[in-house]
Amino acid sequence: MYSIGIDVGGMSIKSGIVKNGEIIHSLSKETSRGGVEVLVQDIENLVQELLKEKKINIKEIKNIGIGIPGVVTNDGAVTCVNLGLNNSLIAPALEEKFEGIRVCIGNDANVAALAEYSYGSMRGFDSGVMITLGTGIGGGVVINDKLITGANGIGAEIGHMMISSNHFECNCGNNGCFETFCSATAIIKYAQKKVLEGAKTSIIEKSENDINNITAKMIFDCYRENDEVAIEIVNRFKKYLAMGLANIVNFIDPKVISIGGGLSNASDVILDGLSDQVKQHLPFKESNIGEIVIAKFKNDAGILGASAL
Amino acid sequence: MYSIGIDVGGMSIKSGIVKNGEIIHSLSKETSRGGVEVLVQDIENLVQELLKEKKINIKEIKNIGIGIPGVVTNDGAVTCVNLGLNNSLIAPALEEKFEGIRVCIGNDANVAALAEYSYGSMRGFDSGVMITLGTGIGGGVVINDKLITGANGIGAEIGHMMISSNHFECNCGNNGCFETFCSATAIIKYAQKKVLEGAKTSIIEKSENDINNITAKMIFDCYRENDEVAIEIVNRFKKYLAMGLANIVNFIDPKVISIGGGLSNASDVILDGLSDQVKQHLPFKESNIGEIVIAKFKNDAGILGASAL
Repeated sequence: MYSIGIDVGGMSIKSGIVKNGEIIHSLSKETSRGGVEVLVQDIENLVQELLKEKKINIKEIKNIGIGIPGVVTNDGAVTCVNLGLNNSLIAPALEEKFEGIRVCIGNDANVAALAEYSYGSMRGFDSGVMITLGTGIGGGVVINDKLITGANGIGAEIGHMMISSNHFECNCGNNGCFETFCSATAIIKYAQKKVLEGAKTSIIEKSENDINNITAKMIFDCYRENDEVAIEIVNRFKKYLAMGLANIVNFIDPKVISIGGGLSNASDVILDGLSDQVKQHLPFKESNIGEIVIAKFKNDAGILGASAL
Repeated sequence: MYSIGIDVGGMSIKSGIVKNGEIIHSLSKETSRGGVEVLVQDIENLVQELLKEKKINIKEIKNIGIGIPGVVTNDGAVTCVNLGLNNSLIAPALEEKFEGIRVCIGNDANVAALAEYSYGSMRGFDSGVMITLGTGIGGGVVINDKLITGANGIGAEIGHMMISSNHFECNCGNNGCFETFCSATAIIKYAQKKVLEGAKTSIIEKSENDINNITAKMIFDCYRENDEVAIEIVNRFKKYLAMGLANIVNFIDPKVISIGGGLSNASDVILDGLSDQVKQHLPFKESNIGEIVIAKFKNDAGILGASAL
């Protein structure tokens, strides 16, 4: 038997047939903005095509899972402004089309956490928290071998956990959200601020004198080259990352914290001394804490995790 | 069959026989500071006396539970500097003395949460978070009908979750801990600061012109009497309380949040509009959130919760 995982993103819908935690065939298409009917049709088409190309019968499919960047209630109703979804029921519509196959849907960050828990860096741990450091910060929480999606599908919006005061407001209207300190967007914004304030740094040379070209990779590269401004930016990022992780430890003290998303490519910089920094932000500095690791999956997390829903 | 609950506090050890969620007999004594041997002996004496006074045979006791203000690892090792305990094994020592009876031990805030979950304000909910607003802020988390104590016994140190920047450092060495904004100590400290800065308020009259006499009750009383400074203090307290609760909702989105501790006596002031304030600090302002309620048990929470361990 096979599973199918669907990863609905803002740009593309990725789909794949999964067997024993491996994607054996995948397909993707551009995301339409046509609301629930078009989305359901697109997913149906992708599934049919996957099956056709691999010559697999629909009866060999155990389940279909969908990860989506929005709030998913426990009834499976999805709200995602970007995709024109408002309490939309996607899974039931697909279950009608694929009679007899269970279709589940979940928030994309939760799905990524499930991929790491089922097949990746959190495998073998009965409790773990995954955070994805990308454009924003997403999160997924597993406790006692169960993904925690919350009473109203809000969990785990770890990126909007408020941890301190910051120099700008978050998109969500609050100040001090974790993702305004530790997302890729946040460190780029801080680098731009430093340059505009006149700081001398090779970051601006790498970006061809245009602050709009600054990337997180440039900042980490300059950090490795001992650029003073890059060191300040990265140290600030790591200080707040340690604070955010300390909040997680203070709250549920998981056995493992897995860091994914684009920034996790700089794993050497991120993990160096991080565990000790986290401990410094706990009330009991001598406590042991869970492992802090880098996520295993990059682009495949969505398909793999969705298939495990 | 009966259970026995032991509530070890900094000042006194309370003990009680519990049947069907009710304390049918209780006894307490002053807390000694003699380390693990004295503590074990004190608890043994209390248990023997409870049984003797109620003429109950030890064979009728199903279990003994102990709540203690310290870090308790999953192996039951207790560390509490105030009580002279350092990785001390209390439960096994008592199991030797009371052969055949299971003895469990847990952190006092977790134990209070268990009391509310088993018999009080969180009863009937499979997920809930309790916070106690007292000298500090304690916390306990129940998810999928299980108390979450964490991989290393750290959970749930919700009082040390960092939520913003504050005008003074927390005892734990960090800045911005939840308990530096929303504990009784925190609002008293803020009131003292206002008075020292020259603010005119009836709080200082109630405290007989000595800021060291200011209590949380005085502040709430003045708030109800429309004292402007008290209104500012309470509004500040509620703003940060809403932020702390929003962090909890963002993280695990529980079905219920129960507020206990001394400050919860001002339930009229605390609950008024609180749920809407919490929603304003979420990324999705229109989301439903779990109920916010006041804890049922005051002084009995420790004995009742411990008996349910």
